[in-house]
Amino acid sequence: MNAEILAVGTELLMGQIANTNAQYISKRLPDVGVNVYFHSVVGDNPSRLKECLELALKRSDVVILTGGLGPTQDDLTKETVSELMNKKLVLHQESLDKIEGFFRGLSRQMTQNNVKQAYLPEGCIILKNNNGTAPGCIIESNSKSIIMLPGPPSEMKLMFEEYVIPYFLEKSPYKIVSKYLRIFGIGESAMEDKLLDMIESQTNPTIAPYAKEGEVQLRISAKCDKNEDADLLIRPVITEIYKRLGNSVYTEEDKLMEEVVAEMLIKQNITIAIAESCTGGLISSRLTEIPGVSKVFNRGIISYSNESKVENLSVSTETLNKYGAVSKQSAEEMAIGVRKLSGTDIGLSITGIAGPDGGSDEKPVGLVYIGLADKDGANVKELRLWGRRERIRHVAALNAFDMIRQYIINSK
Amino acid sequence: MNAEILAVGTELLMGQIANTNAQYISKRLPDVGVNVYFHSVVGDNPSRLKECLELALKRSDVVILTGGLGPTQDDLTKETVSELMNKKLVLHQESLDKIEGFFRGLSRQMTQNNVKQAYLPEGCIILKNNNGTAPGCIIESNSKSIIMLPGPPSEMKLMFEEYVIPYFLEKSPYKIVSKYLRIFGIGESAMEDKLLDMIESQTNPTIAPYAKEGEVQLRISAKCDKNEDADLLIRPVITEIYKRLGNSVYTEEDKLMEEVVAEMLIKQNITIAIAESCTGGLISSRLTEIPGVSKVFNRGIISYSNESKVENLSVSTETLNKYGAVSKQSAEEMAIGVRKLSGTDIGLSITGIAGPDGGSDEKPVGLVYIGLADKDGANVKELRLWGRRERIRHVAALNAFDMIRQYIINSK
Repeated sequence: MNAEILAVGTELLMGQIANTNAQYISKRLPDVGVNVYFHSVVGDNPSRLKECLELALKRSDVVILTGGLGPTQDDLTKETVSELMNKKLVLHQESLDKIEGFFRGLSRQMTQNNVKQAYLPEGCIILKNNNGTAPGCIIESNSKSIIMLPGPPSEMKLMFEEYVIPYFLEKSPYKIVSKYLRIFGIGESAMEDKLLDMIESQTNPTIAPYAKEGEVQLRISAKCDKNEDADLLIRPVITEIYKRLGNSVYTEEDKLMEEVVAEMLIKQNITIAIAESCTGGLISSRLTEIPGVSKVFNRGIISYSNESKVENLSVSTETLNKYGAVSKQSAEEMAIGVRKLSGTDIGLSITGIAGPDGGSDEKPVGLVYIGLADKDGANVKELRLWGRRERIRHVAALNAFDMIRQYIINSK
Repeated sequence: MNAEILAVGTELLMGQIANTNAQYISKRLPDVGVNVYFHSVVGDNPSRLKECLELALKRSDVVILTGGLGPTQDDLTKETVSELMNKKLVLHQESLDKIEGFFRGLSRQMTQNNVKQAYLPEGCIILKNNNGTAPGCIIESNSKSIIMLPGPPSEMKLMFEEYVIPYFLEKSPYKIVSKYLRIFGIGESAMEDKLLDMIESQTNPTIAPYAKEGEVQLRISAKCDKNEDADLLIRPVITEIYKRLGNSVYTEEDKLMEEVVAEMLIKQNITIAIAESCTGGLISSRLTEIPGVSKVFNRGIISYSNESKVENLSVSTETLNKYGAVSKQSAEEMAIGVRKLSGTDIGLSITGIAGPDGGSDEKPVGLVYIGLADKDGANVKELRLWGRRERIRHVAALNAFDMIRQYIINSK
């Protein structure tokens, strides 16, 4: 079964909000055997909505409309769909009672325009709104399903989970289960090179790469009978990918790099202190976004000035004068210094040139050193990054987290 | 001129990402006289893409495609568009040189599939990618414009601003100029109360409020001839808003709070050091996102542990024992300590409970203290914030920046 998601609302075409409803629905539908082939967005305009709906009914088995079910004049989804499908709108007393009850509960007078929400296409399946006033509905006609859901995400999601997912589960003989591998330290094209034969030959599960800033994701999707264990299909593929990409895969769950690293530190009780220069607190800030990290994160020193590197991290003035603040040597002393002063198991340091100014031929914008110290000394990694300040800082932070991750893996 | 935004990418149909590119473009196009009537999303599938493109060309003057310009096999936008428009793809040497340069800069081998990014439809306008490898392009045909932009938002946005906005500005007889006032320290409904008569009576410019997390924005949009000075329409409205809201308005430019604060510090050469506990580096990280801030930002201390508060900030053990780390007293000593140890003009401190754990009846999650010290002593502000960890940290940081801002305004 193929679906199209048709969002109705001028606020989307004005860019006031992103179409996160389509994202949510798209992520869930494959689980119940429905493939999404198209998203469309149209404004609160009956004739353009009608055109879009006609097209959607031509090319898709299922059309899910979001938005335009509310009480105001520009809410026209039900009216437009009903007209096209030759259905009358009839009063649904139970829905009206509920809407009236809702206003009574708020001790507010119900304005007359709210009554319109209780009018639904004759013969439809009514979907209760347990998080708001406007009910949704399903019209079935010529083996097509037209599903109308409210626009506010909190109402849409609940209704979708309570009624739409069970509706399709009943119809579908199969499901599609997806796993997402997140990969760091290998570019999209290099990764594709390593996996090309798999990507090309796999039909079930399928493998699809997707590049994010500084990292790559792989989606592995298996289609199987709805009572079957999809993991039996997916696991061998993931095992083969691990064989080829090794530790570049940093998670198979919906987790950020810093989450993975925080969990490793907490689980193995490895304490850490961080000295940041070019990232200015970004690494510590991301790490401390994760609840519970206070167990292992002792402190951060943002040594933006040279004095701070000397005073807070015991970097020697000689090193700073001889090699500069952005150097392998300074990174090494920063990592050793922050570890020693904090009494932690490991110390991480980062120093570099984030730009746009401050670069030279010898030390260009994007040059970054990351140091990692433990009781045995320090390792320093040199990076040459490109892009704007924000990107350089972001990718530098990702590299720093990955250096911690690789350290923990290798010291097991 | 009417536009349709056609996003290409199975990752959108799978719900891996939301179509934020369409949102961004939709928000900007009216500024240059282009109305957006439709958004569409289609997967990496040439025949369905072709269908969508044919439809878009029928119903819209401008079709903006995002995504599918990359190096991998499923990147098919240029190929599909060129076939439909009967254009050959030809090698653009300058783009190839640039791509090769990127890989050299990264000391990585360029894989062969990257070459494909340098092939562009004959006769097109080439749009340089100054934030990545894949160039974009514009094909003009039968008074229609087909614009192809890369999918990664950081690349798309830069290319859109650098080339697409000027492209339309040249074509349009009128322009819509918007000013955004950013407001902090007053809620959306309280603000609307103060401005309601203006919002309701204004037609050109229009005034529209929009609530963001922890702050409020006002959009003032004037429509005028493209050679006209829109400021003549907008300025009197802004003057009146300032009269009513005063210092709550922190900028009339497209600037973040931290940008405004960084510029004030740099302009008046006020040096600063920051001691963070609950925000874990977020404030320093945001401040150092702004280029040039190294002139005034001396250092940051992320004193997550009590030892760090004592060792790096000279907070007394007695204070920590008697009042706790999250207290007015600790915030005061942290601010004074970080200022004194860094030798800066001012010292900012923040300590609080970001949650989800660590709260008590006496000190609930969301309790935050912000301290600001100068040569005359320190002031501390108490906040009671709500929401999840991420929101509490974000709003706490905004409050800290605003405290610096108000300090600078008042000490003039």
